[in-house]
Amino acid sequence: MKSTEEPKSESDFTEHTVDSTVAYEGGFLKVMRDSIRLPDGGSAWREYVVHPGAVVMLAFLDDDTILLERQYRYPHRKHFIELPAGKLEPGEPPLETAKRELIEECGYEAREWWQIATLTPSIGYSDETIILYGARGLTHVGAQLDVGEHLETFPAHLDDALAWVRDGIITDTKTAFGLAWWALWGRGGQ
Amino acid sequence: MKSTEEPKSESDFTEHTVDSTVAYEGGFLKVMRDSIRLPDGGSAWREYVVHPGAVVMLAFLDDDTILLERQYRYPHRKHFIELPAGKLEPGEPPLETAKRELIEECGYEAREWWQIATLTPSIGYSDETIILYGARGLTHVGAQLDVGEHLETFPAHLDDALAWVRDGIITDTKTAFGLAWWALWGRGGQ
Repeated sequence: MKSTEEPKSESDFTEHTVDSTVAYEGGFLKVMRDSIRLPDGGSAWREYVVHPGAVVMLAFLDDDTILLERQYRYPHRKHFIELPAGKLEPGEPPLETAKRELIEECGYEAREWWQIATLTPSIGYSDETIILYGARGLTHVGAQLDVGEHLETFPAHLDDALAWVRDGIITDTKTAFGLAWWALWGRGGQ
Repeated sequence: MKSTEEPKSESDFTEHTVDSTVAYEGGFLKVMRDSIRLPDGGSAWREYVVHPGAVVMLAFLDDDTILLERQYRYPHRKHFIELPAGKLEPGEPPLETAKRELIEECGYEAREWWQIATLTPSIGYSDETIILYGARGLTHVGAQLDVGEHLETFPAHLDDALAWVRDGIITDTKTAFGLAWWALWGRGGQ
């Protein structure tokens, strides 16, 4: 590893808000449509999803074993293998979301939590930011799935999970990012 | 690396479509709201963005040097460092999108292309799928940015780009995934 300085640039491509409007507000998704001024002075508009933010967790049963989930994701009409994750409730600090979701979805409390990285999964059309946490010292306390939430949790060896990323069995990007991050910089470093 | 078999499960959490409605169709985003039947027989709805699909490219100037872009992303109100990428036009095969975008955004043609991986960046609320390609044997032919498109392209050493992922300077998940994938399985393997 060499540089950790951000690459320098003289260019400023900032787009300035002229007007901001809620274009759609459903039960789950909120879409904004803003008029903007481009860096060259021209006019344009930007449409994007407003998201409350989310968390994703590498929850370690031991140094080599993490919790994964299998869940149906309707937008793709198929089951996915994912790290435990969840959306922030209004006003909820992200670490509290992580603790709450690890209990609700997986049934575990953790003695130790630490922040690993920040992800922005769809910067072209969503303001979503995901914080990746690590958790260890797990104690099973029993899952409390929300009504209508159907998923199963299972332990996986990190090597298996990584092989599933390599071979395209895991495509969920927050999950792939978390597993790859840990493989590159986590093991031994923590 | 051990197993490459998908973990077995007896559980079927499939959600069946009862009714599908376009809830919002803007100039860029299309949102569906579907009534569904849950695996336990209950009723619910799912809201999600319909996306045409996208491509992202590891474009190699040499074995250790790739092209990156710096671009303002309005949903987050800041500049991001990203791999070259782009959305599919209607009916466009993904590899053609990749070739078109590498010329338009970066000004390069590539002699050799290969598919590396598939990503699904926001499976909770979007059906977007991104295909990651590799490209090498680059020839500079000059960029052709769309009207209103403002970005700059720069070469980066893979080690620097990876350090930017590790240190949180790169958070764009398709970019982080591409760089991490190559660091773990690409170098030497290709």
